Amino acid sequence: MELQRRLGKDRVLLGLAERRNYAYDGIVVGAIPALVVLPRSTAEVVEVVRFARQVGLPLVARGAASGLSGGAVPLGASIVVAFTRMTGFRIDPQARRAVVQPGVVTARLAEAARPYGLTYPPDPASFRTSTLGGNLAENAGGPMCFKWGVTGDYVEGLEFVDFEGRVHRVERKAYDLVGLLVGSEGTLGLITEAQLRLVPAPRYARALMAAFDEVGRAAEAVSAAIAAGAVPAKLEFMDQGCIQAVEDYLGLGLPREAAAILLVETDGDDPLVVEEELEWVAEACRQHGGRVRVARDEAEREALWRARRAISPAIGAIKPKRLNEDIAVPRSSLPAVVRAIEALAREYGLRVVQFGHIGDGNLHPNVLFDPRVDSEERVWSLLHEIARVALRHGGVLSGEHGIGLLKRDFMLEALDAETLAAFWQVKRAFDPEGLFNPGKVLPEPHSRPG
Amino acid sequence: MELQRRLGKDRVLLGLAERRNYAYDGIVVGAIPALVVLPRSTAEVVEVVRFARQVGLPLVARGAASGLSGGAVPLGASIVVAFTRMTGFRIDPQARRAVVQPGVVTARLAEAARPYGLTYPPDPASFRTSTLGGNLAENAGGPMCFKWGVTGDYVEGLEFVDFEGRVHRVERKAYDLVGLLVGSEGTLGLITEAQLRLVPAPRYARALMAAFDEVGRAAEAVSAAIAAGAVPAKLEFMDQGCIQAVEDYLGLGLPREAAAILLVETDGDDPLVVEEELEWVAEACRQHGGRVRVARDEAEREALWRARRAISPAIGAIKPKRLNEDIAVPRSSLPAVVRAIEALAREYGLRVVQFGHIGDGNLHPNVLFDPRVDSEERVWSLLHEIARVALRHGGVLSGEHGIGLLKRDFMLEALDAETLAAFWQVKRAFDPEGLFNPGKVLPEPHSRPG
Repeated sequence: MELQRRLGKDRVLLGLAERRNYAYDGIVVGAIPALVVLPRSTAEVVEVVRFARQVGLPLVARGAASGLSGGAVPLGASIVVAFTRMTGFRIDPQARRAVVQPGVVTARLAEAARPYGLTYPPDPASFRTSTLGGNLAENAGGPMCFKWGVTGDYVEGLEFVDFEGRVHRVERKAYDLVGLLVGSEGTLGLITEAQLRLVPAPRYARALMAAFDEVGRAAEAVSAAIAAGAVPAKLEFMDQGCIQAVEDYLGLGLPREAAAILLVETDGDDPLVVEEELEWVAEACRQHGGRVRVARDEAEREALWRARRAISPAIGAIKPKRLNEDIAVPRSSLPAVVRAIEALAREYGLRVVQFGHIGDGNLHPNVLFDPRVDSEERVWSLLHEIARVALRHGGVLSGEHGIGLLKRDFMLEALDAETLAAFWQVKRAFDPEGLFNPGKVLPEPHSRPG
Repeated sequence: MELQRRLGKDRVLLGLAERRNYAYDGIVVGAIPALVVLPRSTAEVVEVVRFARQVGLPLVARGAASGLSGGAVPLGASIVVAFTRMTGFRIDPQARRAVVQPGVVTARLAEAARPYGLTYPPDPASFRTSTLGGNLAENAGGPMCFKWGVTGDYVEGLEFVDFEGRVHRVERKAYDLVGLLVGSEGTLGLITEAQLRLVPAPRYARALMAAFDEVGRAAEAVSAAIAAGAVPAKLEFMDQGCIQAVEDYLGLGLPREAAAILLVETDGDDPLVVEEELEWVAEACRQHGGRVRVARDEAEREALWRARRAISPAIGAIKPKRLNEDIAVPRSSLPAVVRAIEALAREYGLRVVQFGHIGDGNLHPNVLFDPRVDSEERVWSLLHEIARVALRHGGVLSGEHGIGLLKRDFMLEALDAETLAAFWQVKRAFDPEGLFNPGKVLPEPHSRPG
């Protein structure tokens, strides 16, 4: 076909068996795309955009598809642009900057920066498979984001292709189009390159685990540690369901009887300061009834974070399906929010496990279910109730996973009509023909473009 | 008149003598506005927007007018909205957040946060007079921005009034309208409230001054110190013209014979680490031929920063007028850029002094001149040449002062036509009638809105 002739045969997947692999992300199954394109350069992306306009099919950008909100999932007949072959990058250690194509795997960048004493902090749980392009689209966070910030905080410039196939290179000056593109989930244009800021890697890190008999006490300990001046690099929370799932899965020796555990890491260039900061956290935990275990060496520290990274596969093994909520609430409301969600789970008779980056109140309640037994309608209703709990406690949707498909309709409650109208204005300005990832981020009731 | 009837007489200034005070900012004199309004609430701002549409006059937002790029200066018949009476704010120490109205003076916020052990880092040189609303509009930086980032890095949410008088409250999720509004210089809407992030105040600070016989050596010392791992909180550069101007003005005992000086401050919670980091910088300076003077106490440290803050008034006293360029270049190009600008100044026979936040390559070359003697056309031509030097060395316009009026036309060279078109699309989406600060930020050749 024509696109194969223009780009080369290996760039376009037409077979059903191949296309089927591009219908889903980490959590949502969508429509099988009409076509999958795997460009290798910005020029090829331009060709794809021109072709899509010609044939009248929308474009869905896709990285490693480890996302958890359906952002990269096609909804109807569409062309998936998979960026996994655009994996070029270079590091300028003097300028502390990396120039990357969107298909670079997140962890690969931090590894490549290490020999220069530099690092790239944003570390979504999927960072060994996720791509930087996907992280940019979703403005991904991770355990490090409490101290170090999210993906968008590291972006100095972007190259993107617009709906007419024009290539733009933007920096963060005058109108911040960089910030606008980051987190827009492929609905405004296709990001083809990014300039990312690198930072000096901290020289020392120390970690601890604290077990609590009650969820609220864990949250209070976090507030006390922060009030004492601690700024941990990571501050993670797991509830009992989560602890047991990880234990069943990996058998790392986590305290199964605990109602909640905290995983905490401090880092910096001075070993005494790093130690002292960890001790502040330990003290705050003990004062709130926590049983503290400090990782004695690098191996123990690594084991703690292996437990954290295992959460997603571990809970995925419990029931055939799961849906992941992603909310951020004021830290002071966290005990009340966790308890309210537990109560909702009991009321609905569905299994919910909770974990998240407690430092900035980012919580991931996951509903685990079996579609052969449990009504999906009830699952969605429960998710909706969970989102409402967050909003009621002064929270927001989407700590870090984006809006995508899963949370699109909740935006109606999270935003006032005026702001939603402003979002649509932006969407229409950048994508007047509805070419880019239709049906994502923005809810429908308002008039659609195109 | 009608607006006085709607808002109260004291809210509207009609007299020529009063209105005349609202024609200029820190550097540009514009047109005397037709009307000056001093609203006290968001509701009153809504009234002003509705009135402006009715009578068909554009709106120019204004804080303390200490800006240096003409952003707050009216260009033709317009209504100036001066936010200086919207000075309400509250601090939530638990959440480390301040909710502020735009008229709050920048330094006031940091002072009010201090009793809670918190601070608000962005510190433009004018922070004792500038307002937070003005800082938001220009995305202002300051000496602290090398380590701590600029205004936009501290904004969690905004309230703004759009061209139809609708009030929007936006946070940094989905489409980042917060980021889009910050730095847009009042061309997209009027910011009426902001949620700003506060951070724990560092407990210790140490400072030094280093004098060099050659500008390039100072820049090399900075690169060496950063390569050694130092992340100073402030890293300021002054050339000889600047040193002599400040000495003439304040007589602080700066080394008049030096070609350049660096002012450096390190901060943190551990006095030994703060000390060690300063010593790394001192060592790097000495290795590059610098004569180092470490501030022995708080009084000496304060004196160093008094010198830095005196630059603007000091050079303002040399010649009747000055125009301030604001560029950011890669640190490695700094010696070449400073020398190229010196050569240009000689070629033009005009006096240029240079200073800036050398840590991130932000440089402020100032052309000092006497309009009775020097041709303004030549001054503008020199400024244009200076901007070109920056672009040629991989730099960008506007480190921190915004584009405003002064740098609007240089945008034609700094941006490609596609990106400028995207800027205009955004402008038209938010301001289809050209109500907000016309003639600023975006250059003309493209079709104007309204």
